[in-house]
Amino acid sequence: MIDQTHPLNLLIEELKKIPSIGAKTAQRIAFYIISLPQEEADKLAKAIKDAKRNTFYCSICNSMTHVDPCQYCTDSSRNDEVLCIVEEPFNIFSIEKTEIYTGRYYVLLGALSPLKGVGPDELKTEKLEKRIKDGNLKEIIIATNPTVEGESTAVYLAKILKDFNIKLTRLAMGLPVGSDIDYADQVTIKKALEGRTEIKE
Amino acid sequence: MIDQTHPLNLLIEELKKIPSIGAKTAQRIAFYIISLPQEEADKLAKAIKDAKRNTFYCSICNSMTHVDPCQYCTDSSRNDEVLCIVEEPFNIFSIEKTEIYTGRYYVLLGALSPLKGVGPDELKTEKLEKRIKDGNLKEIIIATNPTVEGESTAVYLAKILKDFNIKLTRLAMGLPVGSDIDYADQVTIKKALEGRTEIKE
Repeated sequence: MIDQTHPLNLLIEELKKIPSIGAKTAQRIAFYIISLPQEEADKLAKAIKDAKRNTFYCSICNSMTHVDPCQYCTDSSRNDEVLCIVEEPFNIFSIEKTEIYTGRYYVLLGALSPLKGVGPDELKTEKLEKRIKDGNLKEIIIATNPTVEGESTAVYLAKILKDFNIKLTRLAMGLPVGSDIDYADQVTIKKALEGRTEIKE
Repeated sequence: MIDQTHPLNLLIEELKKIPSIGAKTAQRIAFYIISLPQEEADKLAKAIKDAKRNTFYCSICNSMTHVDPCQYCTDSSRNDEVLCIVEEPFNIFSIEKTEIYTGRYYVLLGALSPLKGVGPDELKTEKLEKRIKDGNLKEIIIATNPTVEGESTAVYLAKILKDFNIKLTRLAMGLPVGSDIDYADQVTIKKALEGRTEIKE
């Protein structure tokens, strides 16, 4: 085997720590990196250090940011009357890509998960409740994941937020676009049937 | 969308340049990196810089090394009478993992590929021929990939090496272990039939 002090081996070991990167992928990425011109490899290394050093949670919405408050909280063109609640900062990326949502965000930084020891007390919602109390909201979109954890979090949020008397909505669940009905699981088809929408002429 | 000067975004852009890493994976890796403690992120960045800075081709066999000649060329316990010819330095990793090969290596740093403009002239084999001439070889294993490029390279090598009067061998082609015959393509099954071995009691 290649000797352990080989810098290439040290890089492979570091890469293997990244979730979803296995031994073979780590090896392939490492060989790609050493095939780069020195300045390109340095740029990647610098991007890693910079991203880590200069990124933190927004003090208002908990999204990832390099300025506080973040761009979503300070953008005056966004709609203050709608708040979208997501589990993790990167969920915002996915929603922003649709380019149809212009309201505000709130990141829970987690979801209820008894297995991981996250109960209602661990899921700190005081900041969220205060924000709703102080705000001028007309609608709250609960955009937690369509998983068991996301579902129980949505139910929990609905329970504590219903007293605010603000319209509560949830992302639609159903067939993923571009797929085939036969590939969808039973629960997804059930959701698609329950949430069926009328075809308007 | 997230603003372009966001350090997180710069990192995602750098990661997306790596072959086989798409936009979603880049995003997931970037969020993982910023979730790391600072020293872990710095360690990864340093590993990238170091691997690039301290790795180069062995002057004898063209493998990737941080000392010249490399560990495979200087290891006195290895067999000088067998030479394994591979396409790329990382192929050595795969062969070493089997722990059954103890001979020497030679890396072609490419394969014949008319589409990529690599003809016999681009595939520099003078160093290889000189090495064979000066050496004491009993067997040359041609371990190019089982692809069209690898196959034509093997045929080309066999042609220029046959005059040396050294036993030339090629890695066996057949069914990958652990798979199912029904999943194998026709060409693989054909090779498996052609290369069938006798069952000895």
